[in-house]
Amino acid sequence: MKLIKEKERIDDLQYKNLRIIQNIENFRFGIDSILLANFATDIKKGSKVVDLGTGSGVIGILLCAKTELSNIIGVEIQEEIADMARRSIILNKMEHKFTIINCNIKDLKNKIKPNSIDVIVSNPPYKKYNTGKKNRDLKKTIARHEVMGELEDFIQISKYLLKEKGELYFVHRPERLGDIIENLRRYKLEPKIMRFVFSKQDEGAKLILLKCVKNAKPFLKIEKPLIIYDSYGNYTEEVLKIYK
Amino acid sequence: MKLIKEKERIDDLQYKNLRIIQNIENFRFGIDSILLANFATDIKKGSKVVDLGTGSGVIGILLCAKTELSNIIGVEIQEEIADMARRSIILNKMEHKFTIINCNIKDLKNKIKPNSIDVIVSNPPYKKYNTGKKNRDLKKTIARHEVMGELEDFIQISKYLLKEKGELYFVHRPERLGDIIENLRRYKLEPKIMRFVFSKQDEGAKLILLKCVKNAKPFLKIEKPLIIYDSYGNYTEEVLKIYK
Repeated sequence: MKLIKEKERIDDLQYKNLRIIQNIENFRFGIDSILLANFATDIKKGSKVVDLGTGSGVIGILLCAKTELSNIIGVEIQEEIADMARRSIILNKMEHKFTIINCNIKDLKNKIKPNSIDVIVSNPPYKKYNTGKKNRDLKKTIARHEVMGELEDFIQISKYLLKEKGELYFVHRPERLGDIIENLRRYKLEPKIMRFVFSKQDEGAKLILLKCVKNAKPFLKIEKPLIIYDSYGNYTEEVLKIYK
Repeated sequence: MKLIKEKERIDDLQYKNLRIIQNIENFRFGIDSILLANFATDIKKGSKVVDLGTGSGVIGILLCAKTELSNIIGVEIQEEIADMARRSIILNKMEHKFTIINCNIKDLKNKIKPNSIDVIVSNPPYKKYNTGKKNRDLKKTIARHEVMGELEDFIQISKYLLKEKGELYFVHRPERLGDIIENLRRYKLEPKIMRFVFSKQDEGAKLILLKCVKNAKPFLKIEKPLIIYDSYGNYTEEVLKIYK
């Protein structure tokens, strides 16, 4: 089998020799996925994990290497991207624990049993459909805008899949926090830990990292700010450690 | 009239010679109120303002000095504390624009017209009734626990009092953020600006400052972190500026 197709390349994940296949034109992961994988590393040994909207598979590949999860299913709606993720899994010899399902997350009810998953991770599309700058490229648009699934769909399916006290980790944009918390409450996924990511110390937040627990009691911890760049424009010590 | 009663003292607010009467035993304001007053200083000229749970009156006194509001009503349930706030207002010669009403915020519907207020500020009780360490002192308990009014009461009355696109500024604890946003959404007070306050750079958040707008569209800005102490335990530059 040929691992690399046209317009693809293999990138080094700079962690335990992991590698990832990316499309040079329309699909490369950002720091969001790296930070989310790092935020979710207290996943317990033997956990069953689902990654909703897995894209290149970067989060799952990092979690396979950083945690002792027993298996992870990556769900990806776009066939070509799902295929690319499958080849990255083979490249990293993770086929025994990382599987890709190519479908819309809304159709998972026919494929995975309810209340059966320990942990869900997700880097979902951030932007509402019909807002913000659209990408000319349809693949990017589907990955970044709520074209095929909305915030509520992804929270609803998380509630369906998770066991009692199961955990949902995701990354999103601060401007959506009102919608996010309203939907989490509606589906009894209680926000327990939140961390805001700032590009620089003196700028507004760019990202939110959020850990929720199904049917938990309310009590939210806001962790120390995660700053990406110092005042000289270099990665901060914390980010350098994540990339190590 | 005697301005000071037994067990009271006059403190300097360290801003434009403002002074405040405080009870040395059971009621002194914290940095929360100072930060909230500073967070709300873009109150427009001529605004009608209400402070829900005004306590010593510190927020209103600072806002009278820092903004061009036309008038402010402080609402305080505890008679002795309301009386103390009235004397602080006289002490600072602000009687022409700062009035105290001594009642439960839930009874304001009979005293102030609906949709008539431009801005509401509040440093409400943070803790749920029957949670956390209780103060032996009933006055402190009423000020800090939701004995006489709950989060939902304070948000509900804010919605009632505010004009269309009127603004609500308040300070609260991060652990309540889920309850806060769920209630704000229920009463159409959209969170627009949020700022987290950290005691030190490497600790979790201690406080949230929040600006909401009645019937506004969702889009939340998370401002840069507000850090109180530097790594040497001294006030940061930003906090020093606030106290100037």
